[in-house]
This record gives sequence, structure tokens and C-alpha cells, in this order.
Amino acid sequence: MSAINAPAAQGRHLGIEDVADLARGCAFLGSGGGGDPQTTFMEIEALLADGGSIHLIELDSLSDDAFVAPCGWIGAPTVSAEKLPSGREALQGLRRLEQICGRSVDAVFPVEIGGSNGLAPLLLALRAGLPVVDCDGMGRAFPESQMVIFNIRGQKAAPAILTDVKGDCVIVETNDNLAEERLARAVSVAMGGTCHLMEYSATGRQMKASALRGTVSDALAIGRSIRSARQEGRDPFAALFEALRASYQFSLAGVLFDGKIVDVQRETRNGFSVGRAVIDELGGGRRLEVEFKNENLVARLDGEVRALVPDLITILDRETAETIVTERLKYGQRVKVVGASAPRALCSASALAVLGPDAFGLPGPYRSIAELNGWEE
Amino acid sequence: MSAINAPAAQGRHLGIEDVADLARGCAFLGSGGGGDPQTTFMEIEALLADGGSIHLIELDSLSDDAFVAPCGWIGAPTVSAEKLPSGREALQGLRRLEQICGRSVDAVFPVEIGGSNGLAPLLLALRAGLPVVDCDGMGRAFPESQMVIFNIRGQKAAPAILTDVKGDCVIVETNDNLAEERLARAVSVAMGGTCHLMEYSATGRQMKASALRGTVSDALAIGRSIRSARQEGRDPFAALFEALRASYQFSLAGVLFDGKIVDVQRETRNGFSVGRAVIDELGGGRRLEVEFKNENLVARLDGEVRALVPDLITILDRETAETIVTERLKYGQRVKVVGASAPRALCSASALAVLGPDAFGLPGPYRSIAELNGWEE
Repeated sequence: MSAINAPAAQGRHLGIEDVADLARGCAFLGSGGGGDPQTTFMEIEALLADGGSIHLIELDSLSDDAFVAPCGWIGAPTVSAEKLPSGREALQGLRRLEQICGRSVDAVFPVEIGGSNGLAPLLLALRAGLPVVDCDGMGRAFPESQMVIFNIRGQKAAPAILTDVKGDCVIVETNDNLAEERLARAVSVAMGGTCHLMEYSATGRQMKASALRGTVSDALAIGRSIRSARQEGRDPFAALFEALRASYQFSLAGVLFDGKIVDVQRETRNGFSVGRAVIDELGGGRRLEVEFKNENLVARLDGEVRALVPDLITILDRETAETIVTERLKYGQRVKVVGASAPRALCSASALAVLGPDAFGLPGPYRSIAELNGWEE
Repeated sequence: MSAINAPAAQGRHLGIEDVADLARGCAFLGSGGGGDPQTTFMEIEALLADGGSIHLIELDSLSDDAFVAPCGWIGAPTVSAEKLPSGREALQGLRRLEQICGRSVDAVFPVEIGGSNGLAPLLLALRAGLPVVDCDGMGRAFPESQMVIFNIRGQKAAPAILTDVKGDCVIVETNDNLAEERLARAVSVAMGGTCHLMEYSATGRQMKASALRGTVSDALAIGRSIRSARQEGRDPFAALFEALRASYQFSLAGVLFDGKIVDVQRETRNGFSVGRAVIDELGGGRRLEVEFKNENLVARLDGEVRALVPDLITILDRETAETIVTERLKYGQRVKVVGASAPRALCSASALAVLGPDAFGLPGPYRSIAELNGWEE
């Protein structure tokens, strides 16, 4: 492919075990959101079993004039957990984007690495015969589509192409990325609560200057660390923290709380899954509350903030270190709540204005998870 | 224009007095909805004063391969009464439609003749230098965009082009006209409650087989009859009924009730203006209730149905015979409630399934206004 410099010399092919590790890692990076990757994993598994191949390439291997397209799904995870896709949504969106822009897409990648959206582009790549770029736009998952590094760095979201299970397609054209989110959100609700979204398509040069490098590899390494530790009888949480320290985009991480879920409040409001989980210490008197809007946003230990968006807050099974996404939280689950520092690019003042506590109406200002917990940087 | 057969030999030019009469007639045909034409009238007045010209042509003068575009605004009239347009919405939508379809539009006309949507295409025609075709898709106004003869007769709504005051544009592509309404409605709400909509574009041949002929002329004649009667000291209601009997699409009409508005309930729900007006007899004990969803749908005299959608129910000032649209209904207004038979094409079984009482969840089946009031056909 001419739009990619020396493709044969770069990148690697992902097998089904890699994809399983990636799914586990994406679930962790979802910070409770982005949807459960399991359905998407099964679809990829079927295509790989049919002889398909996933080619992961480095961001820097893109030529400047390549045309690349981030993609993913928009909607409440509570809906996508119940409403299966037709499997044609993403390819229809890709083809329509190509028609509108008058050029072919050279590669795809996740608009958000967290949750099922970290895996969705692999499925599209398999169907379209395109490589996947090792990067994303969020370094985790976020509930709104303007909460993305491409917006923070001044790229345009439009044209946004929304496609649904019935084959309907809506194209949003605007210079205002907040309007794009508002219009796309309304369309996603009218499309039944979830649909495929292509947005922020751009050149290789633009993406090399803005995308978060290496996050597909990071998710893969995170998922692999947990699996290996379990297979080898090591502590999966220790392995997870080590993988985060060794990653491209993440660094500090630790257990914020260890306990049992005693209450979950959750409702689907304006296309979002909104609520909170209450977790009591096992054999202790302390209580952690986690608020979420699709993703976990703030963790309070006995009322005191211990982690704040954009830092990652993920609730995991305390034995297996498998992530429990918000729509699967249930009374009685024994969990560890893990906090991890967000990618640095998300912690600048301009980024925090878009995706920090203020953007969610949470009391701010942002304080890092290291500062809030006295962790050594 | 080659797409119109011998244009010089056909049609006529409308002056500002014609447009004022048309506005009055459209308000009547709105059956309480379609929005108040006054703002649109003032915009047209300004363009005509600048030397613009409106060319009204007959439906049958279109060549078979002409490309014509119905247009209008979607949203709650309560919103459009307060939120002024930029004036660029319609032309932006027209140009985008032309790009998407790869051909120029030869003429425009109202998707609904009722209310301000009866006038909106004149404004677009002035700005684009196009003729207006003497026809429409509803013969009145209806709250939902699939309630149109083009849908009933199997034409496709998509591509639908929505444009708003900010210059944002959304394109809806679907083979399902109900999905088009659902998606366009959601977008209109996200665009602030009202936006311009181009849909059901088609060839001259298709429109000659489906559109309601002569309804622009009908609205003009209705408006003129009321004005002339007032100027000449005749009863404007008698003049209105005479104009309806002499029209292309309408026939029977009469006063259903004469009284004073004693209560108005109205709310904006899901992008619609929904509610009812209660009218008490002047010096009598009877009461008429009119339910509306943007348009007046049913009139009940002391609980007994006297008029049912799609027949027209319009509330007018009892002295001037000026229409009072639903969003301007107020306690204390002295009114006559007029009922008029709908165009025949709206009363077929297939049409009633789309826009009859059942489609609004009203107790049916449809009974004509003549039957309900013992009027002679």
C-alpha cells in the first residue's frame, strides 16, 4: 500500500490469542466504559478462523498523505450489550466516507482504545482488508465524542458518518465539534441507542502530530500481563501495574480499594448510562463510591476524592483481574478498584478543559491520582 | 429552462399582494399548524421590494425529466415563532441536495401548503432564481414528514437534507420513510427545535403522478376571498366557503362552532407542540374541544366528534376570519371554528392509514366532516 512507508518492513500480524489479550486490555482501559468487548471479540474470532489476518502498523509508518479513519460505536453500553449489530455498519460507513471525501481510506484505528471500541476497528480492518494503526484518540474511553485528542488539537470531526443495524446512514457536516457530538448523539438515540460512527478522518501527517501512539500495543501488553500472571500463578494485579509502567502512554497505577459491591444505581439518560456503584470494605468499615457516565469518573473513599477523570478508574474481579464494565456491575461482586494515571497528553490545561472534571460538572480542579494517594511518580 | 415545457407560455408572476393573500390562505390550510407565515412573508416582501420575482408554474408544465424538490421546515411551531432563521438554510440545503444527486434542481414547491411552509419555497425560489410549482404534498399541514402524498404513493424521502441557523448540515439516507421522519425529527430537536428540510425530491414525471395539483392557487384564492370580502363589507366566512367550493382540492366547509376560548393547554413534547383548546359558546351552554399535535386533529362538541383528521379544523378570529395558529391560541379570543373536507387523495384507505385518526392514536375509523355534521355533499 503506497500510503504506508515500506509496510512489509514494519508492523506485525495479530493472531487470535493477541486479540483475546487486546480485548482484556481494552476492557481495563475503558475505565468501566466503551462497552464490553466480548461480542466484538467473537466476531473477530470467526473472521480469523476463516483465514483473515490483522496487520498492526506503527503510527510513524504512515506516509504524510495517507488518509486514515478513526472509528468506533456511539451510544450507551447498556444498549449495545443487548442489541447486536448487523455486521455491515462499519464497512458501509467506511465506503460512504470514501465517497464523500473522494478518496480511499488507507488504514483504520480506534477513536477510543477503551472497551469494545478498542476492538471494533480490527473487525472493520478484517472486512475492508486494511491495516490497523497502533494509536487511538483517547488513551481510554470517554462518554462524548469531542473528548478526544483530535478535537483538543484542533482537528475537525466532520464529516461524521453514522450507520445503523438497518442500513440507514446519517452524515453530519459542521465546523463545530461540539455540534457534531450533539447531532451524532441525537441520531444515535434515534437509531435505537447505538450505531457505528466514523469521524475525525485525517491525513497521516495530521495523525502523526496528534494521535496517542502505541495504545493498541499498550492494551495488548496489559491484557497479556494479566493472562500470563494467572497462568503462571503470579498476582495479576502486580503484573498489570508492571505492564502499565512499561507502556507507551501509562505509568503509575495501584489498588484504590478492595471490597464488595453493596449497591449499584444505573439509568439510561439521554443516550448515556449514568449512575454509581457503592463498595464496602471486606471486613472493614470503609466505603468507596464510584460515579459513572458510561465511564467511571470519580472515586470517593469515605467521601474523599481518590481518583478523578481523566485518570483511569477500573473495577476488576478481585481474583481474576478481569474488568467489570459499568453495565455489568452487580450487588455482591468482590472487586478491586484500580486507579491509573491518564496519558500525559490528556492532562494539559487545554485537554482538561475538554475532558477533565469541569467538563463533567464535577468539583475540580483536577488533581492527579499520584497526588491524591501520595504515590511516588 | 429546458426542464420546463414552454415556460414563457405558462404560469404567472406573483406580486406582494398575491403573497399576502397566499400567506392568509396557507394559514387557513395549516389547520392550526405549519407555523405562522408572518415572518416568512416579511422576508419575501423584502426580496420582492428589491426587484425579485416569483414565477408560479403549473405542475403539468414540468417536463418528465425535470428534477424538482419539495421543501419546508421541520420542528415545533412554538419554537419557530421565537427562533428566527439565518436566511441561508434553504439555499444551503438546495445546493447540498444538488451535489448529492449530481444534478440541478429545476423548480421547488411546498412539501406542505399549510402554514409558513406554504410560503417557505417562495423565499427559496427567490434566492435560487427558480420557479415555484403549483402543487404540494399534503394539501394542508401535518405534524410528521411521512404524512405526505409522496410517501403514500411510494416515493422515497431520502436523501433528506437538514440545515440549521448555524450552517450545520445533516444528510439522512434510508429506504424507510418512517426512519427518515424519526431521524430527521431527532436532528431537528438537536438543531434547536427547528431546521430546514429538503426531502422527497423526484422527477417531473413522478410528481405529476403524485403531487396535489393547484394547491398554491387554492391557498391564494382562499386568502384573496377573505380579504376581498372584508374590503367589500361582505361576510368573510361565506366568501371563504365559496372559495373552497371553487378550489382544485377542497369542497365542503362550514362553521363548526362560534365561541370564546376559555382554556388552552400546550406543551412542547419530543419536538411537537401538543395540547388542546376549550371553547365555550357565546351566550350558550355548549362547549367545543379541539385537540392538536402541531395541527388541530379532532373537534368534539360536548364530547361528540364533529371533525377528524385529515379533514381541516381551523380556528379563526370571528370578526376578521384571520386564522389563529395553535401557538397563538389564548384565553379570551372570540373565534369561529371552521371545518373543511380534506383533498380526496388524503381520504383513500392507504392515505388514512398514514395520516388518518389511527395514525394519531385517535379513536377511529375516519368519518367525513360531511357525514359527522349532516352536510350535503
